[in-house]
Amino acid sequence: MDLRECARLLRERDRYLIVTHTRPDGDTLGSAAALCRGLRRLGKTAHLYHNPEITDTYVPFVAAYLAPEGYQWDTAVSVDVGDARILARGFSGDVFLMLDHHATGEPFARHVLRQTYRSSCGELVLDLLEELGLGLDKEQADLLYMAVSTDTGCFRYANTTAETFHAAGRLAQAGADIAGLNKLLFRTKSRPRLKLEGLVYSGLRSYRDGALNVAVITLEMMAQSGAGEADCDDLASLAGQVQGNRVAVTVRELASAPPLSKISLRTDGGVDASAVCGSFGGGGHRMAAGCELALSGPEAAETIRQAVEAVWA
Amino acid sequence: MDLRECARLLRERDRYLIVTHTRPDGDTLGSAAALCRGLRRLGKTAHLYHNPEITDTYVPFVAAYLAPEGYQWDTAVSVDVGDARILARGFSGDVFLMLDHHATGEPFARHVLRQTYRSSCGELVLDLLEELGLGLDKEQADLLYMAVSTDTGCFRYANTTAETFHAAGRLAQAGADIAGLNKLLFRTKSRPRLKLEGLVYSGLRSYRDGALNVAVITLEMMAQSGAGEADCDDLASLAGQVQGNRVAVTVRELASAPPLSKISLRTDGGVDASAVCGSFGGGGHRMAAGCELALSGPEAAETIRQAVEAVWA
Repeated sequence: MDLRECARLLRERDRYLIVTHTRPDGDTLGSAAALCRGLRRLGKTAHLYHNPEITDTYVPFVAAYLAPEGYQWDTAVSVDVGDARILARGFSGDVFLMLDHHATGEPFARHVLRQTYRSSCGELVLDLLEELGLGLDKEQADLLYMAVSTDTGCFRYANTTAETFHAAGRLAQAGADIAGLNKLLFRTKSRPRLKLEGLVYSGLRSYRDGALNVAVITLEMMAQSGAGEADCDDLASLAGQVQGNRVAVTVRELASAPPLSKISLRTDGGVDASAVCGSFGGGGHRMAAGCELALSGPEAAETIRQAVEAVWA
Repeated sequence: MDLRECARLLRERDRYLIVTHTRPDGDTLGSAAALCRGLRRLGKTAHLYHNPEITDTYVPFVAAYLAPEGYQWDTAVSVDVGDARILARGFSGDVFLMLDHHATGEPFARHVLRQTYRSSCGELVLDLLEELGLGLDKEQADLLYMAVSTDTGCFRYANTTAETFHAAGRLAQAGADIAGLNKLLFRTKSRPRLKLEGLVYSGLRSYRDGALNVAVITLEMMAQSGAGEADCDDLASLAGQVQGNRVAVTVRELASAPPLSKISLRTDGGVDASAVCGSFGGGGHRMAAGCELALSGPEAAETIRQAVEAVWA
């Protein structure tokens, strides 16, 4: 399906429920809310499924779009959900239309618009709203800027393309508050988060001349920093920042008695992350995978480090 | 002077020396090298002044453009130099043309093209090269992407505009290696830098419920982290990341016997940074200023904190 067909479908139907993914990020929430607003501007009834995992940062952006209790919908549209298994917790029902940009995961809706060359669902929704013949208002521009900028790490990640920059330029022209959103999303951290990063950086261990880096986040570090779950976004990216890094291991202690640790493994593809994590019952992709081990943080880190060393060519 | 007149001037003359600023950053170096390459592509002789302060990160980008010893130039062009006092160390001579985007500083050249609405000199040079009728080659696109992205903190700073994004989009289309440059410039840090950040974050002190934040970088922290001068870029931005920050004080110990500390003060404008630093013999702007104190790091931090508190409304 292309954008035009998708726009035609959306014009035909009504009573929309827009569904986001588990552990919702700026892309799924921003894209969904901008689409919801677009549908309302077309005269449709549209609400977002009340995803129970929305974090504080995003609440102000989506509050006006959340479905009231007991809302009866006709047409469910999923946004940025690559696989049915990560549809927002508690949602059940058929999905009529799936808007996505992920390359993996099984399509699960009656109609599918999946453009894998897009950096973010936000880029796709931007063009879809244009196809619907609606100019962007400032609020939609803000929502879509949140979507595009968070999914590209503020234009730092490898998914950033010329089209991404041009999309951001269009959103800025449409009135998106670039400076304010950047400050909120990328230039500000909670004090506990900064403390926790301080502890992680101080404890970082490097091997193979900086090519292998291991970060451990223990329960004690969590307590010492005062960090909660909302302060733990993207901790797995910290170790990979070391110059010359090729493999980054991040271990987070989840429980102590009995011990349980969650491992995130990211590589440049030289070491197959999914093979290493797979041997411990986990999974993922060649460059990013995860697993859990019934060990303390430091023990789990050493176990994974040895497993990485064993397959390192 | 506008871009067209500037292009006409550049076509008329020859034997260029392009001059960057002290403590050269990605914008002055990237813009200068891209312009130098453009002039060479026009058939001119053009070199960069051999700025003695170029750091390791930037050497590979500018090495091919540095003037050979004894080079005799006719026409000096300064790039991204807002004031004659920050012309690269050791340069002397008249400047024929000044290309700049800063709002402050006294113009010092015979001809001045200063566009203060630009995020970076890179944006200006991009349009100037277009005006010269030269398409961008991949190397110029890389150099200008380095310029634009570093001066905007990878599009995070408040100087980022719709035009900035569109410029980045043009550079990506012209072949700039966005992913590689982002990795080098924004996603990678030296191990000593990460250690140092860890120590800074761990020692950060917050007052006024997080509105006033104080970071101290002692000589001991420098030694403990193994950080050198090249690892100290933009340390003054770390304290300001705390949620709710309005005033950030960063103190760096420069010497211990006798003690000397360098202070950087950044505010949201509520507290006048230049007034506070001015009272200690320093200066700057309302939102960013600096001074030096003959005190240890912790003593200097406490002195400045009290001075800030004294003027805080």
